[in-house]
Amino acid sequence: MQLSTLQSEYDQNRKRFVTELSEFLRFKSISADPAFNDTCRSCANWLISHLKTLGFETSILETKRKPVVYGERKGGGNCPTILFYGHYDVQPPDPLELWESDPFEPVIKEERLYARGAQDNKGQLFYVLKAIETLIKANESLPTIKILIEGEEECGSVGILESLESFRSKIQSNVLLVCDTGTLVPEYGCITMGLRGISHMEIKITGPLRDLHSGVHGGIARNPAIELSKILASLHDESGKVVVDGFYDGMIAVPDEDKALANAFPIPKEMYVAMTGIEPDGGEKGLSIAERRGFRPTIEINGITSGYQGAGSKTIIPSWASAKLSIRLCSGQDPEKTATRVIEHLQKRTPASLKFEVVDKFPGGGALLLSSKSKPIALAKQVLEEVTGKPPIFMWEGASIPLIKRLSEVSGATPVLVGFGLDEDNIHAPNESFSMEQFRKGFLFAGRFLTDVRN
Amino acid sequence: MQLSTLQSEYDQNRKRFVTELSEFLRFKSISADPAFNDTCRSCANWLISHLKTLGFETSILETKRKPVVYGERKGGGNCPTILFYGHYDVQPPDPLELWESDPFEPVIKEERLYARGAQDNKGQLFYVLKAIETLIKANESLPTIKILIEGEEECGSVGILESLESFRSKIQSNVLLVCDTGTLVPEYGCITMGLRGISHMEIKITGPLRDLHSGVHGGIARNPAIELSKILASLHDESGKVVVDGFYDGMIAVPDEDKALANAFPIPKEMYVAMTGIEPDGGEKGLSIAERRGFRPTIEINGITSGYQGAGSKTIIPSWASAKLSIRLCSGQDPEKTATRVIEHLQKRTPASLKFEVVDKFPGGGALLLSSKSKPIALAKQVLEEVTGKPPIFMWEGASIPLIKRLSEVSGATPVLVGFGLDEDNIHAPNESFSMEQFRKGFLFAGRFLTDVRN
Repeated sequence: MQLSTLQSEYDQNRKRFVTELSEFLRFKSISADPAFNDTCRSCANWLISHLKTLGFETSILETKRKPVVYGERKGGGNCPTILFYGHYDVQPPDPLELWESDPFEPVIKEERLYARGAQDNKGQLFYVLKAIETLIKANESLPTIKILIEGEEECGSVGILESLESFRSKIQSNVLLVCDTGTLVPEYGCITMGLRGISHMEIKITGPLRDLHSGVHGGIARNPAIELSKILASLHDESGKVVVDGFYDGMIAVPDEDKALANAFPIPKEMYVAMTGIEPDGGEKGLSIAERRGFRPTIEINGITSGYQGAGSKTIIPSWASAKLSIRLCSGQDPEKTATRVIEHLQKRTPASLKFEVVDKFPGGGALLLSSKSKPIALAKQVLEEVTGKPPIFMWEGASIPLIKRLSEVSGATPVLVGFGLDEDNIHAPNESFSMEQFRKGFLFAGRFLTDVRN
Repeated sequence: MQLSTLQSEYDQNRKRFVTELSEFLRFKSISADPAFNDTCRSCANWLISHLKTLGFETSILETKRKPVVYGERKGGGNCPTILFYGHYDVQPPDPLELWESDPFEPVIKEERLYARGAQDNKGQLFYVLKAIETLIKANESLPTIKILIEGEEECGSVGILESLESFRSKIQSNVLLVCDTGTLVPEYGCITMGLRGISHMEIKITGPLRDLHSGVHGGIARNPAIELSKILASLHDESGKVVVDGFYDGMIAVPDEDKALANAFPIPKEMYVAMTGIEPDGGEKGLSIAERRGFRPTIEINGITSGYQGAGSKTIIPSWASAKLSIRLCSGQDPEKTATRVIEHLQKRTPASLKFEVVDKFPGGGALLLSSKSKPIALAKQVLEEVTGKPPIFMWEGASIPLIKRLSEVSGATPVLVGFGLDEDNIHAPNESFSMEQFRKGFLFAGRFLTDVRN
């Protein structure tokens, strides 16, 4: 379908799209809170009915946790099979008192739809469903489309990750379309070309049986808070590089043309300061922001706890000190091995008279690295140029969605990550919203992409 | 009075001593909690009455906080004036559920008196009062005795420290007797020869306006928890020495004979491990436990807080990181200057893009260092040998009692610190108790010391 036809379809149906999306948004499908387990299932069933009206064969794929919605519609001819992934679960709405309207009673204000999930991901997955519906109603010739919508993305995709192998034959495809990302500025489209992997853990070092008097024992007992500071300080050198033995092992080199694409749309320093309140001077020296975020792994400390936490003073040698750490991985780094090397580095540097423990090691996942030379990405670029009138931004993201890599591996499909979210959407925060203008662009993008992917 | 006479006086009066002490212990004179302000005053008034019955001229010395009990009894002849210092306030009894009997209803079990304050300091100050009473009743010729009992030792002696200058002429003396310390093993007496000074503070470094996503911002924003670890790790070198510029400035050298005395009763490693659960391998290399504790200053971290403190993981770059630090000082180091140097050291090493703040700087105090050559200490040694049959332990303590140094300066008196507390007494903890055997030794020591100090 041509862009102008899609646009006039959008204009005619926009009101209905909002009404239907609002129905979807009213489900309190909060995956993190077991109190909403039944609501999540109702939401999944609503999606099943909706996909049926679009002409999909549907089924609920059960996992040990939340149900996964599955739909399939056979297409004609010798064209690539599309697997579309999304999630129907949302973040908890807390703190509720900061919302200006009910998070589960959608309202439109100044051309923005306000509700929990309005963008992430109910809003973004819905423009894809509406584009598919539009193409089907117009009897466009479509590829085979498989739809997989999970209910646990906001809390680790545990259920679907466990069961993914059993869905293997069902979800075999060629192109994995995901619309759960964003862009930097509304004028430009954006293709997400990479996601870092993640490995995270909590470690603890223990000294005396109980907190000791810092006068009576100062200079005699080792202080776990000091020793923890030392081992954490030993992770990086002066240039910001990680100095853990073997940390960078296996990393895949990024082609120069992709580095150039990553640097083509530099983030202005002032914009970063305005957004975060801090200068972008972390990480490794001599690399651009885009390179440090997209092409370099990091170790961050997410939290430290030791000793007295209250107001005023308590002059003790703490019994223990603990730290939570997350490692962001680049393509080729093994999540398990890299975590083990970081743990060994820390353990080796802990004095023998203190006990070193790994309190927890969370399941992680490898990085995703796409090539600007892949065919579906070249198509996405072309379609985004058509929709926005501008060449899109190529963004190698720093964040992790462990499922995408696994889904691409199990389904055999090449991922294409295009999304229309913006920083102003406040996802995961109070007053989440999505601009109807970005919804419209998403609809046009999905319609044009699914039209041209046949060739 | 001779030792044997004192012993028979003790035997005849022990029951009454316990009855009177129990009356004293029933006052919930908890200085930290303003709810007990009136009880503290009642306790002070009880002491005033008690000192009157002993023949002292008494007065309440008001401060901006808790009242100070003062008593004076003129003595005869050309002998040194004694200033006896103690405190009537006690630590809060929490956690109450761990007490096996009511903390404010004293009971004797297996020759130990159980109650909050049974040792610290009501029990120990009471054997001195009973020894004075015994000598007075027997018409012994006594020196002039001044008694100063404050009500805020457990929460920083703020009131008395503020008002001390105004008591100057009243409290002029020659010997300052304090019985608020302990000994290592019950068979040996102990003279405390030094107390370290203290300076403490809380610092905070702030980065982003709020916690940031560790994936989106990892490698771009500086991590305050990492930077805090680095600056804290920079305080000591590999040998455990503090490397803050000028940290050791002004330190007074300890005579070799006092070092020998400090090392004469070494703490066995096994005993330390049994007591604390950790080997005594902290502090500076190449020095004994006694030297590291008594003759070397330290910097300890009392607490670190940064980022996510809950269970599980939250992969963030924390907005800020803070640390509480305490410095224990040796004689000659200036508390204020040393604290400033530590702060400057930390601030200088904090990257310019992060904000460095001193959240709080607590009032400190200098160290006290006594000489084994001082006349009253030589007398204490002789008396302890007589009472216990063994040469006493000379202990340079690591803890701080800022008031003692100031009191010695303002009164002009040479301190003598002798106490009979033991680790098993659980001071500041549930089930505080004091053995009647140690109470008896304290009574004999005080009686003999006040008898012989005349010469």
